[in-house]
Amino acid sequence: MGNSIGKNFKITIFGESHGESIGVVIDGIPPGISLDFDEIVYEMNRRRPGKNKISTSRVEKDKVEIQSGYFNDKTTGSALCGIIKNKNKKSKDYSNLINNMRPSHADFPGKIKYKGFNDYRGGGQFSARLTAPLVFAGAIAKQILKSKNILIGSHVLSIKDIKDKEFNEATLNEDLFNNLRKQKIPTLDKNISNLMEEVILKHKKESNSVGGVVECSIINLPIGLGEPLFDSFESSLSHLIFSIPGIKGIEFGSGFNITKMTGFEANDSFFYDEDLNVKTYTNNNGGILGGLTTGVPVNFKVGFKPTPSIGMKQKSINIKNKENTTMQIEGRHDPCIVPRGLVVVEAAAAIVSLDLLLEGGKYNG
Amino acid sequence: MGNSIGKNFKITIFGESHGESIGVVIDGIPPGISLDFDEIVYEMNRRRPGKNKISTSRVEKDKVEIQSGYFNDKTTGSALCGIIKNKNKKSKDYSNLINNMRPSHADFPGKIKYKGFNDYRGGGQFSARLTAPLVFAGAIAKQILKSKNILIGSHVLSIKDIKDKEFNEATLNEDLFNNLRKQKIPTLDKNISNLMEEVILKHKKESNSVGGVVECSIINLPIGLGEPLFDSFESSLSHLIFSIPGIKGIEFGSGFNITKMTGFEANDSFFYDEDLNVKTYTNNNGGILGGLTTGVPVNFKVGFKPTPSIGMKQKSINIKNKENTTMQIEGRHDPCIVPRGLVVVEAAAAIVSLDLLLEGGKYNG
Amino acid sequence: MGNSIGKNFKITIFGESHGESIGVVIDGIPPGISLDFDEIVYEMNRRRPGKNKISTSRVEKDKVEIQSGYFNDKTTGSALCGIIKNKNKKSKDYSNLINNMRPSHADFPGKIKYKGFNDYRGGGQFSARLTAPLVFAGAIAKQILKSKNILIGSHVLSIKDIKDKEFNEATLNEDLFNNLRKQKIPTLDKNISNLMEEVILKHKKESNSVGGVVECSIINLPIGLGEPLFDSFESSLSHLIFSIPGIKGIEFGSGFNITKMTGFEANDSFFYDEDLNVKTYTNNNGGILGGLTTGVPVNFKVGFKPTPSIGMKQKSINIKNKENTTMQIEGRHDPCIVPRGLVVVEAAAAIVSLDLLLEGGKYNG
Amino acid sequence: MGNSIGKNFKITIFGESHGESIGVVIDGIPPGISLDFDEIVYEMNRRRPGKNKISTSRVEKDKVEIQSGYFNDKTTGSALCGIIKNKNKKSKDYSNLINNMRPSHADFPGKIKYKGFNDYRGGGQFSARLTAPLVFAGAIAKQILKSKNILIGSHVLSIKDIKDKEFNEATLNEDLFNNLRKQKIPTLDKNISNLMEEVILKHKKESNSVGGVVECSIINLPIGLGEPLFDSFESSLSHLIFSIPGIKGIEFGSGFNITKMTGFEANDSFFYDEDLNVKTYTNNNGGILGGLTTGVPVNFKVGFKPTPSIGMKQKSINIKNKENTTMQIEGRHDPCIVPRGLVVVEAAAAIVSLDLLLEGGKYNG
Repeated sequence: MGNSIGKNFKITIFGESHGESIGVVIDGIPPGISLDFDEIVYEMNRRRPGKNKISTSRVEKDKVEIQSGYFNDKTTGSALCGIIKNKNKKSKDYSNLINNMRPSHADFPGKIKYKGFNDYRGGGQFSARLTAPLVFAGAIAKQILKSKNILIGSHVLSIKDIKDKEFNEATLNEDLFNNLRKQKIPTLDKNISNLMEEVILKHKKESNSVGGVVECSIINLPIGLGEPLFDSFESSLSHLIFSIPGIKGIEFGSGFNITKMTGFEANDSFFYDEDLNVKTYTNNNGGILGGLTTGVPVNFKVGFKPTPSIGMKQKSINIKNKENTTMQIEGRHDPCIVPRGLVVVEAAAAIVSLDLLLEGGKYNG
Repeated sequence: MGNSIGKNFKITIFGESHGESIGVVIDGIPPGISLDFDEIVYEMNRRRPGKNKISTSRVEKDKVEIQSGYFNDKTTGSALCGIIKNKNKKSKDYSNLINNMRPSHADFPGKIKYKGFNDYRGGGQFSARLTAPLVFAGAIAKQILKSKNILIGSHVLSIKDIKDKEFNEATLNEDLFNNLRKQKIPTLDKNISNLMEEVILKHKKESNSVGGVVECSIINLPIGLGEPLFDSFESSLSHLIFSIPGIKGIEFGSGFNITKMTGFEANDSFFYDEDLNVKTYTNNNGGILGGLTTGVPVNFKVGFKPTPSIGMKQKSINIKNKENTTMQIEGRHDPCIVPRGLVVVEAAAAIVSLDLLLEGGKYNG
Repeated sequence: MGNSIGKNFKITIFGESHGESIGVVIDGIPPGISLDFDEIVYEMNRRRPGKNKISTSRVEKDKVEIQSGYFNDKTTGSALCGIIKNKNKKSKDYSNLINNMRPSHADFPGKIKYKGFNDYRGGGQFSARLTAPLVFAGAIAKQILKSKNILIGSHVLSIKDIKDKEFNEATLNEDLFNNLRKQKIPTLDKNISNLMEEVILKHKKESNSVGGVVECSIINLPIGLGEPLFDSFESSLSHLIFSIPGIKGIEFGSGFNITKMTGFEANDSFFYDEDLNVKTYTNNNGGILGGLTTGVPVNFKVGFKPTPSIGMKQKSINIKNKENTTMQIEGRHDPCIVPRGLVVVEAAAAIVSLDLLLEGGKYNG
Repeated sequence: MGNSIGKNFKITIFGESHGESIGVVIDGIPPGISLDFDEIVYEMNRRRPGKNKISTSRVEKDKVEIQSGYFNDKTTGSALCGIIKNKNKKSKDYSNLINNMRPSHADFPGKIKYKGFNDYRGGGQFSARLTAPLVFAGAIAKQILKSKNILIGSHVLSIKDIKDKEFNEATLNEDLFNNLRKQKIPTLDKNISNLMEEVILKHKKESNSVGGVVECSIINLPIGLGEPLFDSFESSLSHLIFSIPGIKGIEFGSGFNITKMTGFEANDSFFYDEDLNVKTYTNNNGGILGGLTTGVPVNFKVGFKPTPSIGMKQKSINIKNKENTTMQIEGRHDPCIVPRGLVVVEAAAAIVSLDLLLEGGKYNG
């Protein structure tokens, strides 16, 4: 069990890929907030499957039905529950997966952990479908953050070996973020986006898949978010980020590259700008020092593995017969999870930022 | 506030670098366990400062005084508190740091967050000195894990651009881990260790510093540790890892490199070995699928930044006068935190592994 | 926010009296358990309103729709979400309560806390209707406990000044508990039940209400449940018990009466019975010592206040006009909450017992 | 394990009666607060044993040594650890208790739970001595509350069958509370205090013991403290109260007596006073509705059992030989725990009030 996260903006997610519904209970939304449901639908659509050739052909509207916590067009302060019905369930696709363990999927450890009782259809609770309620919660968090001018944006930094340029912090603003989120594959260099699509489609055609890296930035966070010793901003964010299926790495600021610099090169020297705001000449620390936000942009990158569901023939095991076998995964799947996963990364960033923001507010009461 | 972590093996750490003492309360140690204190001292010594030229000259014995939870040479089942007195405090070294904010340190956001009341001496609660009680707790966790044949080992994969070879999973065993932990700079290729020491001393001489990467492996974990959706093994481990000062990135298995592979290349195909144990041909997922351990080694890498405390003259700000300034950091500091930080990484791995192991045991009662 | 409780059998409840639905997410149900849905419906019906003259005339079937966590007639080990649609909503009944604060209801502090945005219809989240999902979760917990021979039963000890006799521990067993739960007003002395019904109907006729006391017993709990210092069995149970609307007191064993005894009278002396089981001659401590269960029955009593919703004219305030006023509460309400509240008390006892039982199982893994 | 409590003002207590030390780590004290240590010593002395004939003869100064979190006469915002050395340990007194289980003590379930490894000396972690750090934490909480005019006072309502009058809410103020806490046995009617002392000494002489009831009041709490559904004010307070050894019941407001009233009698009607503050004509609900504070005094009563440690010969069991036996408890013990327990009750009230106050402040940030 571990289906809840957050201390002040706390989410509890339930559901399985082919069950009745999936959903989320959000505890800690301040009362009196009007939600922009068009905006929520927009975010849900960004993550939604079946909308183009680079994503799975499973079509789900992912309409969220509010059960509680919203009254007279405002949040009430009590728990808000949103539910998404599972509509397009093709359970028969998965019957052959009861005993054949898909490589690099949760099938095998899941079956052992849950003693064979887990819902294996479509990956059950391990399905990336469970990120839909996460995006819903994130869309709410984003709106609350936006009212405080805190903004989150991201782009696909790489797909396989096709690489976009990195964020230039001087240019991070709402317009850029809005432009990015309109793109099918959000990149700073729009030509790169086409190359990325090509590489995805090429591997799709081969019944193979590809991975990539997302770069995300959170701007205008107040100074001092994060709770030492253990709930540093990095700790809190990485915790939720690694709940997103397919992510195998996270780095803040210059990340692993900082290990090759000297201290003198790596140190982000402070200065006062003309308005006496504290800035840094560089941002190798990704806007976080000692686990606390410093007021400059929080930057991080996450690496998604190639979708493990591929149509190619693969070696595997049959757990009932205890024998080696081969298998081909039928069913619908994304040739590359990165463009949809990016939306989930933003949602996670929003949820964690709001949670720590509320924590910090405690002493101002 | 965020000084506690863990659900079943729960630690609460307190203290500041130059306060009376630092320490840890450990809640959840099963009763009836005899601790090997020589082993604990050995681990504490691995992390301890002042023992050679590549670490800070602050000498601390770091003797842990047990206050509770241990009786008649066995754990009692109640909270075990261990305290480490701060002996070698040179508080005068830091008086000039009240208003001058050291670059890439927590001084600035800490001062804002705590409204100027935080103990600035030696970094206060942000000091890496707070990792001493973490290593103590980790040493206890390691002993409990070892009784179940679960072992943790690590080496310095790189210092700046000097690189050791990576772990070969076929060779991971207790002997290797024991050999590694006897080395001043643990590496698989012992010649590399000397080169690393050279690059550290070279930068120390220049009043500069360097960073590096630690590779860590946990072997013989049972299948299925990790609690979806949010307390995946990666989530839980990264949470604690990012509480260690100076770490800016973590990756599991092939990590960011997996983003460049195709699904077919990346997927770790299962097979039954001769003894009908499930193995994988490759381990690009670092022994974790769907957030759950798979029974093969859990492998991860963490990147440490170069020590921000350097003797070179640096640009900075004076927060009282609200003006730009320059500063030189006196006092004692490590030219490279990696060899000592590695011990803390192992401790974190032990604490998280034990916490999730106890969680899993719940249903077997 | 505080809509989740439990560490190992964790429930998160959402909903408001007149919203779309109410429900619960249960995290921590072991996998592979077949639920007896007839039994669940039976328990839901015991609490359900509108089934007789001594309860509110609001009729709700309270059918629970399972959303997740149940597959092939067994629990899967993932979060189980059950939803209950609100069908019989008469929201107009409540429109006059926006500004007139019902005495002894949560209206007033709720309005202040949530700045006027809480759903005031039917008490919103403060409605006793929210105990329906609690009873559902409790019904599941009861089944798991029953498989380990742990049983929970209760009776109405008093309604106003009509008093049943107390439990005789020697006679506590499954048959007694089953007989009790078939009664409209469960009592040990069945004649008392009729007197209780009379006093309830008499006050209903006068548009008034009455309260009473429930005595509950949990038998066959293992020795040692409870987690010192702070999660004693009494602490954990009272925490959940006081979440049930209308309860103003709880006492364990002889409770407040023990304060009038001497130590010699109060002490429950141990003895070995013929089968070498440890028993006590008396049970003034209610089966709990030092916060831990002792293996003899856990007994406790809770006091319910008379339903605050009464039809009589009462003094109150209008919060908009900031003036004193009088009001009469229309709408449907129970003349006495005790017979239905008793079912919720049992549910709470089941949830807490299971949560602590799972905690204790951890070290046996 | 369960040695931590609180969400925003979180305390972690460790120690055993005859171990090296006992202590507490407090997480969540706002930075910049000057503590009045004379006041802390005063509170510690109120609880301290050995100061008069009605308490145990074990003399302990209970001096708290601050380890962290306090710098330049102010709290730093990091965890504050206070330690109390165990000085007057007479461990030999307890050697005969390894296998003979004291009636109504935690010895028996503790031995089973911890498999015989718990520290049996003086009750180990179950000792009421562990309430010393709780009083220390409470003394800090009280000071923070006092700065917001929130005050806590209590008196001994009864010892055995000697009864003081109840609090009159109109007269609750700082002077009354200060007068009460100067008394050896705080009562409203000072003559009653002498009678209580007599009954205690009489039973002490007979090697017996007595119990009693404490009434406690918290005044000037803001409206709306408490977090539905599960962290109601009553839930949160009762949770901590039942962690205090010897308490078997708690009731709020009229408590169990309210069960005998009609709704019309029990309902606390609101009115606006001259200053347009909302008041109630009565306070049968103890200042809490729907789990939320209403702005009028929070009143509750707790019942302490007679000290189980008595010198009289009692029946018991020898757990090693598995046979019935008799025993007499030597050693030092209180003939009545109530006068000292009262101080702990106030501390618990302070800790919970502050924790919920900080929670409420979150949304004002």
